[in-house]
Amino acid sequence: MGYGHDPYTERAKAAFREIFGAESDIYFTFNGTGANVVALSCLTQPYEAVICPATAHLQTDECGAFERFAGCKLLAVECEDGKLTLEHLKAFGHPSREEHHVQPRVVSISQSTELGTLYEPAELRELCEYAHAQEWYVHMDGARISNAAAALELGLREASRDLGIDVLSFGGTKNGLLGGEAVVFFDGTLHRGAAPFARKQGMQLASKMRFIAAQFLALLQDERWRRYAARANAMAKKLESGVAGIGGVRITRPVHCNAVFATLDRRAIERIQKRFFFYVFDETLPEVRWMTHHGTRDEDVDAFCKAVAESLAQ
Amino acid sequence: MGYGHDPYTERAKAAFREIFGAESDIYFTFNGTGANVVALSCLTQPYEAVICPATAHLQTDECGAFERFAGCKLLAVECEDGKLTLEHLKAFGHPSREEHHVQPRVVSISQSTELGTLYEPAELRELCEYAHAQEWYVHMDGARISNAAAALELGLREASRDLGIDVLSFGGTKNGLLGGEAVVFFDGTLHRGAAPFARKQGMQLASKMRFIAAQFLALLQDERWRRYAARANAMAKKLESGVAGIGGVRITRPVHCNAVFATLDRRAIERIQKRFFFYVFDETLPEVRWMTHHGTRDEDVDAFCKAVAESLAQ
Amino acid sequence: MGYGHDPYTERAKAAFREIFGAESDIYFTFNGTGANVVALSCLTQPYEAVICPATAHLQTDECGAFERFAGCKLLAVECEDGKLTLEHLKAFGHPSREEHHVQPRVVSISQSTELGTLYEPAELRELCEYAHAQEWYVHMDGARISNAAAALELGLREASRDLGIDVLSFGGTKNGLLGGEAVVFFDGTLHRGAAPFARKQGMQLASKMRFIAAQFLALLQDERWRRYAARANAMAKKLESGVAGIGGVRITRPVHCNAVFATLDRRAIERIQKRFFFYVFDETLPEVRWMTHHGTRDEDVDAFCKAVAESLAQ
Amino acid sequence: MGYGHDPYTERAKAAFREIFGAESDIYFTFNGTGANVVALSCLTQPYEAVICPATAHLQTDECGAFERFAGCKLLAVECEDGKLTLEHLKAFGHPSREEHHVQPRVVSISQSTELGTLYEPAELRELCEYAHAQEWYVHMDGARISNAAAALELGLREASRDLGIDVLSFGGTKNGLLGGEAVVFFDGTLHRGAAPFARKQGMQLASKMRFIAAQFLALLQDERWRRYAARANAMAKKLESGVAGIGGVRITRPVHCNAVFATLDRRAIERIQKRFFFYVFDETLPEVRWMTHHGTRDEDVDAFCKAVAESLAQ
Repeated sequence: MGYGHDPYTERAKAAFREIFGAESDIYFTFNGTGANVVALSCLTQPYEAVICPATAHLQTDECGAFERFAGCKLLAVECEDGKLTLEHLKAFGHPSREEHHVQPRVVSISQSTELGTLYEPAELRELCEYAHAQEWYVHMDGARISNAAAALELGLREASRDLGIDVLSFGGTKNGLLGGEAVVFFDGTLHRGAAPFARKQGMQLASKMRFIAAQFLALLQDERWRRYAARANAMAKKLESGVAGIGGVRITRPVHCNAVFATLDRRAIERIQKRFFFYVFDETLPEVRWMTHHGTRDEDVDAFCKAVAESLAQ
Repeated sequence: MGYGHDPYTERAKAAFREIFGAESDIYFTFNGTGANVVALSCLTQPYEAVICPATAHLQTDECGAFERFAGCKLLAVECEDGKLTLEHLKAFGHPSREEHHVQPRVVSISQSTELGTLYEPAELRELCEYAHAQEWYVHMDGARISNAAAALELGLREASRDLGIDVLSFGGTKNGLLGGEAVVFFDGTLHRGAAPFARKQGMQLASKMRFIAAQFLALLQDERWRRYAARANAMAKKLESGVAGIGGVRITRPVHCNAVFATLDRRAIERIQKRFFFYVFDETLPEVRWMTHHGTRDEDVDAFCKAVAESLAQ
Repeated sequence: MGYGHDPYTERAKAAFREIFGAESDIYFTFNGTGANVVALSCLTQPYEAVICPATAHLQTDECGAFERFAGCKLLAVECEDGKLTLEHLKAFGHPSREEHHVQPRVVSISQSTELGTLYEPAELRELCEYAHAQEWYVHMDGARISNAAAALELGLREASRDLGIDVLSFGGTKNGLLGGEAVVFFDGTLHRGAAPFARKQGMQLASKMRFIAAQFLALLQDERWRRYAARANAMAKKLESGVAGIGGVRITRPVHCNAVFATLDRRAIERIQKRFFFYVFDETLPEVRWMTHHGTRDEDVDAFCKAVAESLAQ
Repeated sequence: MGYGHDPYTERAKAAFREIFGAESDIYFTFNGTGANVVALSCLTQPYEAVICPATAHLQTDECGAFERFAGCKLLAVECEDGKLTLEHLKAFGHPSREEHHVQPRVVSISQSTELGTLYEPAELRELCEYAHAQEWYVHMDGARISNAAAALELGLREASRDLGIDVLSFGGTKNGLLGGEAVVFFDGTLHRGAAPFARKQGMQLASKMRFIAAQFLALLQDERWRRYAARANAMAKKLESGVAGIGGVRITRPVHCNAVFATLDRRAIERIQKRFFFYVFDETLPEVRWMTHHGTRDEDVDAFCKAVAESLAQ
């Protein structure tokens, strides 16, 4: 039975509904860009817009997939540490309903953010309240929702739906899966029947969906997602401590989840990159981003810290 | 190393180039709709059109994904047995270059077709020659290219590039993979640099691409694709023979690959469907489509034929 | 006061509402393609489709503007004399709600058709009833609605809304205006607030809208539209009579409005085209299309008939 | 003869070529949004992006028409006085060619800007040189190019093509026309044959194009565009002087062309708006925008200044 009409998919969807509530409607997708685009395109008409931080993956790393697929505009906001604030939203509040201007319709936030930071629950609750008062929806890009929930010591529902989020892109690939994401509409009527078609048109409908679903079954079972994410978070903390004492390394952002941002000498970076793969996040400083994951071992961090120290000592 | 910058992907691409030629440019995608859309969108501007049979998967089963993504029109042609002929193409030949009309730019054929039929090599060669004389490209939806090559006793290159095909959607999912397809541009300059971006915007770029690539490595090794496809084809032949003698079953189309089309009593169909899953292809007749695959066993076919016979005997 | 906030626009809209009913919502556009695209894009989601004749202007002469703007598929039907029938619609009735297939949502018919033919009121009523039973909308491309209403001796409302039409592209440019069309939603709630935005995004919002509105005021006043259209229709009838007796001319379609279709010798066509401009509608026969308009004079028709006779006598 | 195959259109295009050079390729459109979208969509693929000021009409007042039509992203830059600088462009220079990111392809500037300011010729030359070194095109939104050329005392070609601009949206509607704009590609090969189709798909192809062309003929004749624009500019200067001495009015931006920006008491604004129509440009300050045009008379300005003075005196 193809295209999700199989017992694994049914069970995985039931597992999601158990966590997020019986009204939830779940759509598995292949990747994170697919999840975001399916989620957002179901909530917008082409003349409506999505407010997001200028650092959102949606804005910077999805090659305009949403614009191309939905024809919509993103309203990208410059902000601190990758986080939208109430002030940012207020700048878009009470828009003119004039046809000359796109109409804000969705707020998209990332939890944890692309800069490794976290929204506090109270911050999200405030953003959601304001958005809903404007008749906007709130989408959470949860590529790292597990890391966030683990860091905040919350359940997945407490970290999303209970704060007012309407739709969640639930990340699997970055938390141990071979590949697979899930779009969770907390209220299945929100997408007005569009979601199955948006997923299909968005080229995210797997014929052998059971192979994605089975992975999610394993991830949700006994909170394996939390064990994986907590491990990644702990290793980032260890990495932060490990490099903090090394002369020439400056940690540039608070370490809340599984990312450590730091500045150090450009030549040292190049030396480390010969042994380990990581991205230079901002070439101008230069600032690097070091990510940990569920499979990162203590000895991996130790070896990496050693390499950093050596490269700076040269 | 993500997004295809890994040794498995490199080796899988090399395996494709060994088969199809060093000029080939290969892009792995998640599913068949994704492969078709990436391939076709790289060959068209939004005012250009794709000629295809009215029965093409692209036209009937992809929910307009191509139209939505590329903004282009499909020129779908009613035709026999799912096959375009030279006459069909000639009806679009020498188009006016007037701005009132979309401009044909690509011919898309499926091999084997959605009706289980096959183009003979000479037929494809003739279509490609005409298309190229019109400055059109030819795309092959090869979701079942392995079955076709096995049935025609040709190599993969002989069955596609050597006949004049420009771009191939190479099917993996229907021939044993967990999931994965490949777009093969036989001349890497054809897409003018657009393919990586089209794949990303088309939400088909896998961060853990190695898990798709590794499957293709296995599929291409020692012509495993041929063994799988030949098995599927043989089981379809066995099924054809098995049901041919059952009163009330009429085989409706030539069985060349892994599909058997037949008409039989509507109530009998419902009885069989309680035990086996298959699609009713045309509700009005009704005509069913029975598919075999690489894992179909002789005893599966025997059991199925028995079920058909029993359901008609009631 | 720009963008339609002027007294001329208000008065022109009031004149439309007087004809079509107070619930009507009117949007002036620049051209016919713009009117069709604005109308249809307000009634469809990108996974929904529009059923139309294969000869519809929308399908053949708008360069895929609708597909590009709305991302939707047209379901173009081969049919006689440019007219959809109940049988055509029934082939799309009761669609599967499966995500693999686009979902029919609108039926678009042209009155009069692109082949110069007319739907009888009873035919349209039947089509609309069936469509509404399927929860589809019916759009009328009324580029020549005035000619149709004049030929049928009906009022504009009787010829459209009262038959069940939901949205009308009301033609002005082909009936004497410098330029301008109007989209009339007979129920202003149909577009759910989208129409002003669709018009703006569709690049059809005139800053000096008063210059379009004033033309419509004149056209609607004292049924000037009918006088213009009746003149064009009468001249087509005169032309039909005039050429009917000329050896070598065969009238190919019933002449109901302002178009005469005929076949004649290819060289004769070329000779006439040196003196008069007209399109060869079908190069293969060849079949020509001769159009009349509100300014066509009796002596113009006489001169044209003489030219036809002479060109065939050579 | 429709769709531009008429002598007026030929003559108007010739008049443009005489000004801008024989290699120029000219496309009349209905409105400014249409001109911008046709121009830009011919220069971009859907994964390419357009750099523009955050205050660009394209970004703020076209309801996302470009994003919807072309599927592209705008890269909107916060900047002073509505003007891009070399530093802004450098921030996008030497982009990674990675598929994760849209690729800058066009720089769009407005001359004069939406804030009434002007680029100096040397500034534009510098921007164009940098852009071309990056293999980017430069588009000028010239809705007010006539005002700019008049203010700079340059010819139209000197104010655009000769500075390095590649494509110009030449404004007519804001400089006295009933309605009509023109896209001028200074090198007709730039759009690679796409422009006629983009205009048609963009719903900007007028069947009775002669009525647009004739207006441009008049506008270009004997530099009527300059007389009109100079009048508007002079009246803005007069207005600036007239209100400068009124207590409570603060001119907020340099007055170079036909716009005066000012802050004054909110209640006074409301009083003036009862007698004259104008936009409040920034509600938060509040800042108003007062526009003059070719038909503004000295007594109009006098009366307006009197009204401002009175409203502030209350």
